[in-house]
Amino acid sequence: MDFWRASPLEDQISVALGQQEADLVLKGGHVFNAFLKTWEDADVAISGNKIVGIGEYTGKEEIDVTGLYLTPGLMDAHVHLESSMLSPREMVKILLLNGVTGAIMDPHEITNVLGENGFRFMLEETAGIPFSAYLMVPSCVPATDMDTSGARITPENMARLRGLSPRVLGLAEMMNVPGVLDKQRGEMDKLKLFYKQKVDGHAPGITGKDLNAYVSSGITTEHECVTPEEALEKVKRGMYVFLREGSAAHNLIDLLPILKKVDNRRLCFCSDDRHADDLIEQGSINYLLEIGVAQGYDPEDLVPMATLNIAECYGLQQVGALAPGYVADIVVFEDLQSFQPVHVVKGGALVVKNRKLLWKSEPVRKMPGQSMNMPAVTADDFKIPIRAGKKLRVIGINHTQLLTKKLHLEPKVQNGEAVSDTKRDILKAAVFERHHNTGNIGLGFAYGFGLKKGAIATTVGHDSHNLSVVGTNDEDMAVAVNRLREIGGGEVVVCDGEVKATVPLAIAGLMSDRDAVVVNSQIKQLDFWMRELGIPEDFSTFMILAFMSLPVIPELRLTDRGLVDVMRFEHVDLWCD
Amino acid sequence: MDFWRASPLEDQISVALGQQEADLVLKGGHVFNAFLKTWEDADVAISGNKIVGIGEYTGKEEIDVTGLYLTPGLMDAHVHLESSMLSPREMVKILLLNGVTGAIMDPHEITNVLGENGFRFMLEETAGIPFSAYLMVPSCVPATDMDTSGARITPENMARLRGLSPRVLGLAEMMNVPGVLDKQRGEMDKLKLFYKQKVDGHAPGITGKDLNAYVSSGITTEHECVTPEEALEKVKRGMYVFLREGSAAHNLIDLLPILKKVDNRRLCFCSDDRHADDLIEQGSINYLLEIGVAQGYDPEDLVPMATLNIAECYGLQQVGALAPGYVADIVVFEDLQSFQPVHVVKGGALVVKNRKLLWKSEPVRKMPGQSMNMPAVTADDFKIPIRAGKKLRVIGINHTQLLTKKLHLEPKVQNGEAVSDTKRDILKAAVFERHHNTGNIGLGFAYGFGLKKGAIATTVGHDSHNLSVVGTNDEDMAVAVNRLREIGGGEVVVCDGEVKATVPLAIAGLMSDRDAVVVNSQIKQLDFWMRELGIPEDFSTFMILAFMSLPVIPELRLTDRGLVDVMRFEHVDLWCD
Repeated sequence: MDFWRASPLEDQISVALGQQEADLVLKGGHVFNAFLKTWEDADVAISGNKIVGIGEYTGKEEIDVTGLYLTPGLMDAHVHLESSMLSPREMVKILLLNGVTGAIMDPHEITNVLGENGFRFMLEETAGIPFSAYLMVPSCVPATDMDTSGARITPENMARLRGLSPRVLGLAEMMNVPGVLDKQRGEMDKLKLFYKQKVDGHAPGITGKDLNAYVSSGITTEHECVTPEEALEKVKRGMYVFLREGSAAHNLIDLLPILKKVDNRRLCFCSDDRHADDLIEQGSINYLLEIGVAQGYDPEDLVPMATLNIAECYGLQQVGALAPGYVADIVVFEDLQSFQPVHVVKGGALVVKNRKLLWKSEPVRKMPGQSMNMPAVTADDFKIPIRAGKKLRVIGINHTQLLTKKLHLEPKVQNGEAVSDTKRDILKAAVFERHHNTGNIGLGFAYGFGLKKGAIATTVGHDSHNLSVVGTNDEDMAVAVNRLREIGGGEVVVCDGEVKATVPLAIAGLMSDRDAVVVNSQIKQLDFWMRELGIPEDFSTFMILAFMSLPVIPELRLTDRGLVDVMRFEHVDLWCD
Repeated sequence: MDFWRASPLEDQISVALGQQEADLVLKGGHVFNAFLKTWEDADVAISGNKIVGIGEYTGKEEIDVTGLYLTPGLMDAHVHLESSMLSPREMVKILLLNGVTGAIMDPHEITNVLGENGFRFMLEETAGIPFSAYLMVPSCVPATDMDTSGARITPENMARLRGLSPRVLGLAEMMNVPGVLDKQRGEMDKLKLFYKQKVDGHAPGITGKDLNAYVSSGITTEHECVTPEEALEKVKRGMYVFLREGSAAHNLIDLLPILKKVDNRRLCFCSDDRHADDLIEQGSINYLLEIGVAQGYDPEDLVPMATLNIAECYGLQQVGALAPGYVADIVVFEDLQSFQPVHVVKGGALVVKNRKLLWKSEPVRKMPGQSMNMPAVTADDFKIPIRAGKKLRVIGINHTQLLTKKLHLEPKVQNGEAVSDTKRDILKAAVFERHHNTGNIGLGFAYGFGLKKGAIATTVGHDSHNLSVVGTNDEDMAVAVNRLREIGGGEVVVCDGEVKATVPLAIAGLMSDRDAVVVNSQIKQLDFWMRELGIPEDFSTFMILAFMSLPVIPELRLTDRGLVDVMRFEHVDLWCD
């Protein structure tokens, strides 16, 4: 299958004129017109990788799509592929099955672990595949200096990454809003470097003159809006606003009413972060269309937000519509409620036929190398001697949001040490630096995980992706950590000294090198054992654990260098008065 | 005045935040928001060449625009500047006074005369001025091989011109529609050369599969639509459709009803050709807005067609809206009916203040060199001996359109020669090759010019721009031709052996090197003498004469190589049975 090959211009013209058979014709469907927001009953004729005619056509290959709905290939305006825990190629398989033929990716996570090599890995693994993978250069690696990341991306790195491929479109989300508004040298350097390219934003709640300043600096997209009013102000000031529905952040239903205030021209859809199981069970951007229609909005207004508008936003030429000269990225849906693709054409090639993926690929073409670089641990490494008369600073977690609370609690004491207390649900937690063999260990306690026995650990830990572990006893915690160290990263559940379930994430400790079906069953196995350890079914415990170490979300976090009081943006001692 | 200078990013942010005074603030106007299609009462703050804030601001310079209407600087999506007969810089002055701060230009005319040098002249004369002049590389020079042009632009020339400047955006209107549909080698070469850039179209009446094929070839704009149905089909197939209102072609009122069928996103405004007197007396693109509102359409729908939509069509970043980060091209209108600018800001610089142009420039910075290269003539050169028993093939002109009729008429005979017959209004016409000193003379007769005495001549003659003359007697015709030869081209009226009026067009015989006021008064003088020669006031005689030589518009034309039967696309003899 040659997904990317254009036919000679002369052939395109001959096919369009009906003088020559098309390579492929989708016959008799309802064809969406993104310019008129209407449906037209017609054949779609394809020559090489392009649509050349809408009308009556015959082809060497013909697919009867009578009664079905044809839209342009869906796109995701902003996604961190790593969050799926699938390799780029496995992720693409799921996306294609959901009618998504392109995405703007920010490989922020793997770049935090592997630096330039991580970025190159994402670029190379998505080369020559039936998917339009565009990359933005991560702007905030490391996210902070409060912990230890695997890599640091300087403006010099950025300049190099920018030039790697035409698929690199610009600078990824500028999360350091105060840094921009304070005109910090580093942030200014980045913005100046990319001033002629696309720069994505990330500025929740920013309004008024702050917004003017943020947008003036050349940042022109936003995916963090939570209310229609916020979204409207950002559109008004020239931003493209992405309505997001991810695995963690659910903003779509809240934001859709903006369509009652303004036309859809500057609105797009994105998922931001979406886990493998949600992708497999709910879908990708097609799931957003499903929600939109269920909420009573017209598919004719929604589909351009997943197609033409994204192409325009990122300056992608001849993409995002079903018209002559446009790239032949086409989804054939059974209906406009469930948005389940029957066929998918990418660059003129049929990649999904009758709901079956025709594209074959190993999950990974070339591994990026090992990411775990830390010493083995013992139960002794977890010991916390008490300090007389002091209380513990405890991270109060919450299963419905990423925010944590700063708690001051009495320790449970055994043999002069502070230990996990399952009765009060105060468990020992630790974060191990895993990139540079520094031996850094941050120790602490968390309230609310719900574990009744055993331990869980993960090498997914935003944004520096150190190893986080929480458990009821030091022995199980040590087993969990050592297992992840041995298998090159992943997620693990341990009980009574025994590893019960693992999701190995051999790619940077973030993504699996196995196929999606295997990964999904490993996740199910992990979920099963989580329940056995006492965690309720609706808890996203591994996600909560993965964010326990991110020292930019309030209030209290644990890094490889100890506890961080996010409000004061400084390290604090485990013990307090 | 530094129209193009950006302020440091740090200053832009400080001004946006209100921490630092803006360079210029337009205070308290009704500010158009192109994204929401609404008006907002606010100050517009400018730092360097960019808008950085909409809100409440103070500035080093402030202009009170209370009660006035602020829109983005207007643009013309497609214009042949030469048609104004003004030098590029004089034209720009008029455009600025009308609120037009940018244009997509096709320097097709001067390139026909001077080749690459003509193109370079247009590029250089529009460099470093307070106007965004984008150029398209002329695609059809010469337009045909039925006459003799000054130059030939091959794909090799095109490749060179394309790389001259970032202001060169692509390939100009592909007028040779049959050539594209027939996959002619030359046309394919051009399209392949520009397949990654913008290619403008020119395909009147093309529909169905022909349209699919034309658009498939990468041509994505159209300014030749005459009905809303035609425009709608072209939008549907992915084209940007330009609603045109020029000096000759009046399509706007017919096309505006398309706004009832589709939103304005893929619609733009253009003038195509607009003469100096119309520009001065009616206006430019602001005149199109005036017409649109008079026809009952909302200014909120019309303004984006002259601003944001054109920027999007041509991929111009941060242009066409009043928002932070956008280039500070701003027009301040007194009202939304007449669209008369009070102030105009271009790239942050006030270029029109209280209706007065602040920008000073000589009409021409550097002349492109002489274009007249032909021998002097005598009355004898015009002699046409009769052929016994034969009739004349006569060009039947019509003052309301560019089409001509093929007439077969008896000659008026004197001394064995066919001569002008003012009684029947059959006048002698001639076209002289003026580029290569070939001595080519095409002789013929035209019916309908209305001249009662004297002769008129012009070096504007589409598209090869040879010298065309029509007259009541050979002596006056010779005087007219020789005068144009002496002064380097222009338009002239001669009577009784005396030159009565001239508009010297020293730039390629197409444009004046004088200022607009002088040119306008010369045109008035010419008009006066036209009336003296018997031509009714509503006749656009010089325009008709300028198109008499264009061998692509039916039915009969006169070139330097004789008569052309356009329907048969071949040269024919003056005499017939």
